[in-house]
Amino acid sequence: MQAVAAEDLGTALCIITGASRGFGRTIAVQMSELVRPGSVLVLVARSGEDLRMLQADLTASKAGKAGVVVEYVVADLGVKEGVENVVKAFKLRSSEDFDHVILVNNAGSLGTSRYAKTFTDMADVDSYLSFNVSSTLCLSACVLEAFPRRAGLRRTVVNVSSLSALQPFKSWVLYCSGKAARDMMFRVLAEEDPDVRVLSYAPGPLNTAMFEEASTKTFDTSLKNSFKDMIAKGEVLTCEASCAKLMTLLLKDKYINGVHIDFYDI
Amino acid sequence: MQAVAAEDLGTALCIITGASRGFGRTIAVQMSELVRPGSVLVLVARSGEDLRMLQADLTASKAGKAGVVVEYVVADLGVKEGVENVVKAFKLRSSEDFDHVILVNNAGSLGTSRYAKTFTDMADVDSYLSFNVSSTLCLSACVLEAFPRRAGLRRTVVNVSSLSALQPFKSWVLYCSGKAARDMMFRVLAEEDPDVRVLSYAPGPLNTAMFEEASTKTFDTSLKNSFKDMIAKGEVLTCEASCAKLMTLLLKDKYINGVHIDFYDI
Repeated sequence: MQAVAAEDLGTALCIITGASRGFGRTIAVQMSELVRPGSVLVLVARSGEDLRMLQADLTASKAGKAGVVVEYVVADLGVKEGVENVVKAFKLRSSEDFDHVILVNNAGSLGTSRYAKTFTDMADVDSYLSFNVSSTLCLSACVLEAFPRRAGLRRTVVNVSSLSALQPFKSWVLYCSGKAARDMMFRVLAEEDPDVRVLSYAPGPLNTAMFEEASTKTFDTSLKNSFKDMIAKGEVLTCEASCAKLMTLLLKDKYINGVHIDFYDI
Repeated sequence: MQAVAAEDLGTALCIITGASRGFGRTIAVQMSELVRPGSVLVLVARSGEDLRMLQADLTASKAGKAGVVVEYVVADLGVKEGVENVVKAFKLRSSEDFDHVILVNNAGSLGTSRYAKTFTDMADVDSYLSFNVSSTLCLSACVLEAFPRRAGLRRTVVNVSSLSALQPFKSWVLYCSGKAARDMMFRVLAEEDPDVRVLSYAPGPLNTAMFEEASTKTFDTSLKNSFKDMIAKGEVLTCEASCAKLMTLLLKDKYINGVHIDFYDI
């Protein structure tokens, strides 16, 4: 029996990182259409200009006109102050105003594509892990601290994952290791707090700047060519199609807590 | 058909981190007995006194008397300078003097046992990942850079892993995420460099100070009690028994490159 999807995500506070473009932007758009009036979207990214334009678009949209509020925070999640600035923004909000708090940990970077044997400088690895792993755990912890368990409040944490969390790819040691660490982090969270809904979603290869980067800057030639082939053959997904599956997962709310689900799994 | 184990590990340069006590110390002892005269062990840890005593023991042992040289480096692998000091020590050695270079990435820490939702400070996560993840990749890269591919030279990188790399444990988010990241890191390396032999070995629950720490400081009560039960029931392994299996794996040299093998798998 198929789980029946709820009609909406409730009156939600949605915090979405990496929201200025690509998959994060699509999540913001689709989520704005699935939350009730009175909901608040907090969009986070490094680029203020892109966020400002997205805010304007969403505020002028049907959802915005119906009463969905859109805010943004310009922050670099690779440093402590970045995470703190995001926390300041959502801490102003009262738990009582919502029946659902959703954090989408979408921000992430590919890092430099190089073979593992060339990573002789710890600083390169440290800064990658700080942005892609540490900030994800800390932001999630800060959201759960600011919005503790309360009757009538659902809490959902999404980790935007990748096939790279499960499968090694040549010349992407940082990306694969970071995604593996993130998946495990959220599996632990799901074990610890069964009342928090935790999902690692691998969106598949998307028509984003990140995939464009992968198809041109992957150091390993055969892997780079396989990415180029995917583009040439039209095998790359639209953000809209992949995000729609994620939204359905959230609406149905039947996934096993902490599970990794790939676009191609469903 | 069982793979036939070689009689020894060759004339080897063995770099072993976290060698001052516990599993790392046992690796140093057993490896010293399996390498040929002329081999060099470089033992790394934070505690100089323990390393000095181990060096004295090994130098006075049968292996030491037969011509296995034992050196040590006092280094904190959580900082760049620590890794650099280790690199300085093994860079003095010429590749031509050995037919096998072995790095055992054994150093690691449990970190503080807390629930994931309490990790609101990025600095706590950053420093954990630096010591447990970044330094492991960088030290491995430095060894492979210092001893490049050469006819007649085998190169082996061992990652001391854990069941926690595969399975989440409550209140150990740092440990589980760090071990998951390390396993993936070495799977990527194995894909990239099939001529480097790469093994992630999970030694099982050992009678070490680390397991004692886990059985007393695990924040999650039911998990802590399960560790205490294992000790009470005598289910904890000796370092010697677990290390012997690792040594057999290395002598047979038939494991799938990059694979994760647990003590209980074999």
